[in-house]
Amino acid sequence: MRIDVLSLFPDMFTGVFNESIIGKAQERGLLNIDVTDFRPYSDDTKHHTVDDYPYGGGEGMLLKPQPIYAAMAALNQAHPGKKRVILLDPAGVPFTQKVAQDLSKAEHLVFICGHYEGYDERIRNLVTDEISLGDYVLTGGELGAMVMIDTTVRLLPGVLGNDQSASHDSFADGLLEHPQYTRPADFDGMAVPEVLTNGNHQLIARWEEKESLRRTYLRRPDLLKTIKLTHEQQDLLWEVKDEEANQATD
Amino acid sequence: MRIDVLSLFPDMFTGVFNESIIGKAQERGLLNIDVTDFRPYSDDTKHHTVDDYPYGGGEGMLLKPQPIYAAMAALNQAHPGKKRVILLDPAGVPFTQKVAQDLSKAEHLVFICGHYEGYDERIRNLVTDEISLGDYVLTGGELGAMVMIDTTVRLLPGVLGNDQSASHDSFADGLLEHPQYTRPADFDGMAVPEVLTNGNHQLIARWEEKESLRRTYLRRPDLLKTIKLTHEQQDLLWEVKDEEANQATD
Repeated sequence: MRIDVLSLFPDMFTGVFNESIIGKAQERGLLNIDVTDFRPYSDDTKHHTVDDYPYGGGEGMLLKPQPIYAAMAALNQAHPGKKRVILLDPAGVPFTQKVAQDLSKAEHLVFICGHYEGYDERIRNLVTDEISLGDYVLTGGELGAMVMIDTTVRLLPGVLGNDQSASHDSFADGLLEHPQYTRPADFDGMAVPEVLTNGNHQLIARWEEKESLRRTYLRRPDLLKTIKLTHEQQDLLWEVKDEEANQATD
Repeated sequence: MRIDVLSLFPDMFTGVFNESIIGKAQERGLLNIDVTDFRPYSDDTKHHTVDDYPYGGGEGMLLKPQPIYAAMAALNQAHPGKKRVILLDPAGVPFTQKVAQDLSKAEHLVFICGHYEGYDERIRNLVTDEISLGDYVLTGGELGAMVMIDTTVRLLPGVLGNDQSASHDSFADGLLEHPQYTRPADFDGMAVPEVLTNGNHQLIARWEEKESLRRTYLRRPDLLKTIKLTHEQQDLLWEVKDEEANQATD
């Protein structure tokens, strides 16, 4: 996969791209990432301006269309071929694991990171996808691009140490992950649930499935509406609801 | 505000904390941030192990409770007083602008960043808040912490250049932001809407309010259910719905 990032603050990416799984994926030749500062593409050759006041008044500055259009033209010339061009914007489609799975199938992703108060609307005509990280406002698109790149890259085959690791994550099957424990069996008086320590793999699998359903039911019941449960899962969910109702009236 | 981050990969933070608004807030003395590597707190003085296999089997490694408990104890000794201790976890409360507003009122935030496949469940007993960045899975909590810190810090008084900038953001009033334009009035045949260029501030304000409602109605109708519209906004929304219905049948 090839990834290009257009940003006014390329140094923001250095630590994250070197230290994380993104760095490892590059070392293994599974990924090529370039971050391009689009300021030099400004046609204002004296001040390299990239922003200007908004029409209609208002505080803050907006990104001008010209530098981004010029940077994209250069990118298209250097790397012809199909691209997903992603604009990071709070008004975009909310980013989810499904969106990441979709992006992970592309050959070339381009992330346009804004800054300041926003974009000139005409920049949207350049892009294939407008995506929002969540219902909150960041100073710029850079952190959003890093999050989307990390989430997407770890789904590429061969990137995670173990090929199956990603399939056990929260959301991979639409449920939150069950509680997990490692040694010691007793830490400061807090014990690991007995079922996990006595080696009966059928009981362990049942416990994990049930606690995954319980956590989702208690914390994110909205997720349960979006997936199809197996008959076994439905039975376990009834048990959970029963137990929780009893606990509430205790 | 004081912020502490516990992470195994402190170098990931350097670029973001230096380049962004977070760096500026520190320069202005509005913010103190420290990133602490909790690996040295491992009681395994030989290998400094921080992770171990999960009970019950399964792939990947889990963060052990001991190093995090020890790092938190040191932090509490160095900085006694009330803290919000935040665990970045996909099973947490979804992060929103409201959560950021709430966090921005705290005096001391601590972010615990996991890595590997997950946490030992007992680490949750240390925290006051479990927060999820969104319904997707990251390699570690580091990027999530950076996003939450950026979103929160820009709400602190004096951090943004202009004190009022944050109040005009998307989500600040529960709506998406209206389209915005800057010069030139015509870019490559794409023109700025006329109303924005003729200087009638009442008409401009009405256009902006209406287009903010239109964008929210078309892209995120779920947001409209969560806010109380003024009578004026309700009238504008009816106009939008009318126009969109007519356009659909044209």
